[in-house]
Amino acid sequence: MSGKKTKIRLFVDADLSATAEVMLNDKQAHYLTNVMKLASEDEVLAFNNHQGEFLCALQNKSKKTFYLKVLSQTRPYEQCPDIWLLFAPVKKDQTDFIIQKATELGVAKIIPVITTHTISDKVKTERFIAQSIEASEQCRRVDLPEISEAQDLEKILRSWDEERVLYFMDETRQAKPALQVFDSNKNKAAILVGPEGGFSEAELNLLRSLPFAKGATLGKRILRAETAVAAALSVWQASVGDWREE
Amino acid sequence: MSGKKTKIRLFVDADLSATAEVMLNDKQAHYLTNVMKLASEDEVLAFNNHQGEFLCALQNKSKKTFYLKVLSQTRPYEQCPDIWLLFAPVKKDQTDFIIQKATELGVAKIIPVITTHTISDKVKTERFIAQSIEASEQCRRVDLPEISEAQDLEKILRSWDEERVLYFMDETRQAKPALQVFDSNKNKAAILVGPEGGFSEAELNLLRSLPFAKGATLGKRILRAETAVAAALSVWQASVGDWREE
Repeated sequence: MSGKKTKIRLFVDADLSATAEVMLNDKQAHYLTNVMKLASEDEVLAFNNHQGEFLCALQNKSKKTFYLKVLSQTRPYEQCPDIWLLFAPVKKDQTDFIIQKATELGVAKIIPVITTHTISDKVKTERFIAQSIEASEQCRRVDLPEISEAQDLEKILRSWDEERVLYFMDETRQAKPALQVFDSNKNKAAILVGPEGGFSEAELNLLRSLPFAKGATLGKRILRAETAVAAALSVWQASVGDWREE
Repeated sequence: MSGKKTKIRLFVDADLSATAEVMLNDKQAHYLTNVMKLASEDEVLAFNNHQGEFLCALQNKSKKTFYLKVLSQTRPYEQCPDIWLLFAPVKKDQTDFIIQKATELGVAKIIPVITTHTISDKVKTERFIAQSIEASEQCRRVDLPEISEAQDLEKILRSWDEERVLYFMDETRQAKPALQVFDSNKNKAAILVGPEGGFSEAELNLLRSLPFAKGATLGKRILRAETAVAAALSVWQASVGDWREE
């Protein structure tokens, strides 16, 4: 197994094509050497969100200072499809899950939105970024999703780029099934999943009046917010995104 | 809000159409009265996995003994589509999540399967049943998914009903996209998601040789087991199951 063992992947905020050596911060060095028990000369894959993925060898300068020696490029840079996720933050574990799953399911941008029935207003952008980096490392993305600061739903709708279609998951079931609504001719899209309490009447009326917004349903069972996120993104990737045949 | 407040839903293992009174066990009584703070005469929805959903009123016989008085039927019995999930148990939290999400996403039966690379062999069927009941209560199912004892993958394949198409999620990407493979003419189906280490060569060879088994892919990012479960079930429900227009 050891020869075929999956290499550890690491996001590094550094130029990987021009630089031969990439210094590791304390957290990264601790992870590689103490948690993953790597030794000097062990191989690691690194990516930086704009140049692709590179094979590197771990090197130590001193007992506590480590760097990566860049050996060769393994994959080109590539962006995930241009799909955004707008979600109303829920409880901590569920929100963590949403960030992780949305990253794995290949979103380009994540925007926490505050709606009338949003039960959590403690939006920890720093935490979301750390989670999206970890999920990107694990799922083999070579790009990172952009994590936006939390925004008020009405405010974001008022300054919306009309070129981007916004699919809102309508729990009142007054919309067509998602697979039918998702439009393969529109590759700039966003998915909006409301809070567990649903959208307010005023929010639904506003969404239904916007020319760029389309309601979509995910069946008749009541899905938790994180399930609706995973379901909507999966159906979009399968029908419009990069799960289709190349 | 109080008038429109979502009523608590409870699974009860009792005849609801012939019986006027349904005794509650200690756990149910504790949940309704101590956790949810319901009082005598408060309304509850109950379902029993074969007769549908009924509006009931909580009643107390003594300080600690409670029962439900059945008032009227609110929904008929209805089964979820005939889709099974076969999954290799992973870590506790992830497995919990798989049971919960699969229930919400409307599976008829869940079978834990032991594969060569399955890292967990501690399969807690009792725990899975409790979780699937809780998820059924919350997502408004009127049926429960059947939870099977863990079985060896090879053994289950040897006695497979060939009428049921088995879609296995193929991480080696030697298969077509799931949305293309899922067949809307076959409404008896099963989805098989392997462990994080993937299927073994021998397992893949066996699966590829079986006439009832079809490989399917979910894009090129590496999905965690629980993400693959949610993604595959979502795409199936959207394209073959009951998320389509009625």
